[in-house]
Amino acid sequence: MAQESVGVVGAGLVGCLAALAFSAKGYKVHLFDLRRDPRLETSQRSLRLINLAVSDRGIRALQAVDEKMAERILQHVIPMKGRMIHDITGTKQESQIYGLFGESIKSIDRLFLNRQLLDELDNTDVEVLFEHKLTGVSDIDKLGAHPTLKFATSGSEEAVFNFDYVVGTDGAHSQFRYQMQKTMRMDFSQKYIDMQYMELSIPPVEGAAATSAGRFSLDPNHLHIWPRKDYMLIALANGDGSFTSTFFSPWEIIESIGSAEDFVAFFKQAFPDACGLIGEEGLRYAYDNQPRGSLVQVSASPYASPNNRAIILGDAAHSMVPFYGQGMNCGFEDVHVLMQLLEQSNGLLDAAFGKYTGARKADLDAICKLALDNYYEMSTKVTDPFYLLRKKVDYYLGKYANDVLFPWVPMYSMVSFRGDIRYSEAVAREQRQTRVLNWIQYVTLGGLAIYGAARAAQVLEKWRR
Amino acid sequence: MAQESVGVVGAGLVGCLAALAFSAKGYKVHLFDLRRDPRLETSQRSLRLINLAVSDRGIRALQAVDEKMAERILQHVIPMKGRMIHDITGTKQESQIYGLFGESIKSIDRLFLNRQLLDELDNTDVEVLFEHKLTGVSDIDKLGAHPTLKFATSGSEEAVFNFDYVVGTDGAHSQFRYQMQKTMRMDFSQKYIDMQYMELSIPPVEGAAATSAGRFSLDPNHLHIWPRKDYMLIALANGDGSFTSTFFSPWEIIESIGSAEDFVAFFKQAFPDACGLIGEEGLRYAYDNQPRGSLVQVSASPYASPNNRAIILGDAAHSMVPFYGQGMNCGFEDVHVLMQLLEQSNGLLDAAFGKYTGARKADLDAICKLALDNYYEMSTKVTDPFYLLRKKVDYYLGKYANDVLFPWVPMYSMVSFRGDIRYSEAVAREQRQTRVLNWIQYVTLGGLAIYGAARAAQVLEKWRR
Repeated sequence: MAQESVGVVGAGLVGCLAALAFSAKGYKVHLFDLRRDPRLETSQRSLRLINLAVSDRGIRALQAVDEKMAERILQHVIPMKGRMIHDITGTKQESQIYGLFGESIKSIDRLFLNRQLLDELDNTDVEVLFEHKLTGVSDIDKLGAHPTLKFATSGSEEAVFNFDYVVGTDGAHSQFRYQMQKTMRMDFSQKYIDMQYMELSIPPVEGAAATSAGRFSLDPNHLHIWPRKDYMLIALANGDGSFTSTFFSPWEIIESIGSAEDFVAFFKQAFPDACGLIGEEGLRYAYDNQPRGSLVQVSASPYASPNNRAIILGDAAHSMVPFYGQGMNCGFEDVHVLMQLLEQSNGLLDAAFGKYTGARKADLDAICKLALDNYYEMSTKVTDPFYLLRKKVDYYLGKYANDVLFPWVPMYSMVSFRGDIRYSEAVAREQRQTRVLNWIQYVTLGGLAIYGAARAAQVLEKWRR
Repeated sequence: MAQESVGVVGAGLVGCLAALAFSAKGYKVHLFDLRRDPRLETSQRSLRLINLAVSDRGIRALQAVDEKMAERILQHVIPMKGRMIHDITGTKQESQIYGLFGESIKSIDRLFLNRQLLDELDNTDVEVLFEHKLTGVSDIDKLGAHPTLKFATSGSEEAVFNFDYVVGTDGAHSQFRYQMQKTMRMDFSQKYIDMQYMELSIPPVEGAAATSAGRFSLDPNHLHIWPRKDYMLIALANGDGSFTSTFFSPWEIIESIGSAEDFVAFFKQAFPDACGLIGEEGLRYAYDNQPRGSLVQVSASPYASPNNRAIILGDAAHSMVPFYGQGMNCGFEDVHVLMQLLEQSNGLLDAAFGKYTGARKADLDAICKLALDNYYEMSTKVTDPFYLLRKKVDYYLGKYANDVLFPWVPMYSMVSFRGDIRYSEAVAREQRQTRVLNWIQYVTLGGLAIYGAARAAQVLEKWRR
């Protein structure tokens, strides 16, 4: 059989991994992106900078493509073994450990990871073409037709390519998806969350050596959270000692702050310790210059074209809010699942495309909902005593009473450390675990009530005599 | 004040009416469309041909722009005063009258109406530019900015226009809306209904004079329905004696019919009388040549841009399925509502744009849902004895007991004949009417039960003595 060809549109994280995965399976791959090669950019400020937390699903997906590559890519991460909760006084920090067995999620810079994946592609025969702006996706509806991609390039001419298969990994506002929708019936929704995000930076400790542990002004091995209900601040460590920090708030709050000075005053009151670490100048700079990002949930169905020759993966198929740290992990898992389906389909990629929506939709719907719900957990519940009690119960049941009733795994662990458990299964198992805990609670309360009633009867009896 | 300018994109029905309305209010209007002038097309086959039923909301909107124009446009319609239900034997037809007081909805050809509206525009100073394909909508986010529209034209040059306000009326797959979404946060969803439609034609009676009543092979003053639950056929009269007929079915059914011969056999069995009227040759032609349309529900929010300088109306904002005959009426009402808001805002169009989403969203959501639910009514309930009983009760209450409790208006009448009642209000009033009928039913059944129990007691008493 002649070598089959795949065109991947969008050289972000998921697109690069998809290109690497198809190449490893023996396909001839072209990878396109409308931007310039990010490795040529001197400023890091041109891209979204929310730091990423790589967790089990992302790692498994990297390893499935190439164990050695995964190792090379993961050597630069900073492990985060828990959340560090910063209180409103700016004086107290409380660690909440993520895993039962010392597991961690791994902080990494988005742009750095993107550059690394592009470097990995240099060692393959994948052709990477930048400054190619997609203008058309056709021949995806008729059975047996081979898809055509059209691009506007920096030159004046239109570039046209034919492939056996095409993959869209061009993000939440995917042009690939929009082009697919022109010739197929794809259900689609996008919903904006009433929340903006703004990037801030905590600089390294001045005077500290570049590799010393002292270069970090906060514990680098925690994801730092300043939970303030309606709004919150988070911070993740970078290798150079800096932290990338993100301020999330409803639009109304940021728009009610009228000047850089007011922004500083707001921070002083809401996040006193962070205010000191970022610095007033940094806050003023961010207020005046940093774009305010919006958060959008995207859902689509089906993901593949009628002739099973085109498919969307990653944010193009299911953009989610960042509050579970699963966006990239889930996108990498998309590639992993597709490759597993390819193996199950004896190497017939159209068969794998055909099975993908059915195999993946429930999990993607589940994680998108979990991500949305997790804002409430991060911003509010982390300081609630009942939440902390539940976490403790989960910890002891998971660690010491596991398998007494059934395998007990806390929800966060299932999502972040157990890539072998599907997102939708994690939701179902957590519902069962919560039912059991409720039942224990009722029995305990019932027992206490009976005990109380018996005691009261005794007292009454005594009193009557 | 200098004359303000409005650019309208999409010269379909709603776009033409919007252009006429803005022109009547004194704005300098440009109207763009990507197609050729439909009046230059010799074939009628190039556009969607589902016949339209103009009803009260559409007529009010036309009249609000210009009473005389409404008269000119409506002189060619064919009134339909009820549904004609065709049974499966092909021998029985049953009329179900729409209104309480002889009201009718009016059948008109979509293309004919479009051409008429364009002719009306010739009498204004609106500039109509065809073969202008929208490629960009910008400056709709910053306060005070004036929107820019970019078009690709038949020439090689890009055409760029600046307006004070811009309006998108370019249909369900609106490019205008897509361009707006690039720079603003617009929630959006599109959902395909598992149903296709195919146009068919019932020719005029052969040999009959072109103006004789005998040229129609069915009663022209009814909307004909062949309700068969999962699928159905409808037919609306045209002035020339022909009927435009539409076959609706799930995709599975049409795709399971493998040949034109099988299609004829299917029609013979499912719609025996219609089969005779369309003719086997007509059915074979349609099967081989007619495109199968898909049905999509589109919802968006907000409709206006952040700076209140751009807005979407009609199908671009709220495409609905055709089963309530309200798509065009509702789009016309959009224009009407916007003009009323303009009057309430002392002629400040940005203020009207700003109020529009709040004023209109609940009604658009209501009619989109009603349209979807009405497939079940047309295809199934119209033959259900309980439905027919409810219709009769509605008829007598609405006609003779109106205002005994509160103004009683059957649902269909509220939607189609009472443009003064908002869609959302119609839904609320129908819920109240249904509660009253349920209550009457319970009281009646309760009374019967008490009466029955009393009778039984008497009988028992007798028997004991």
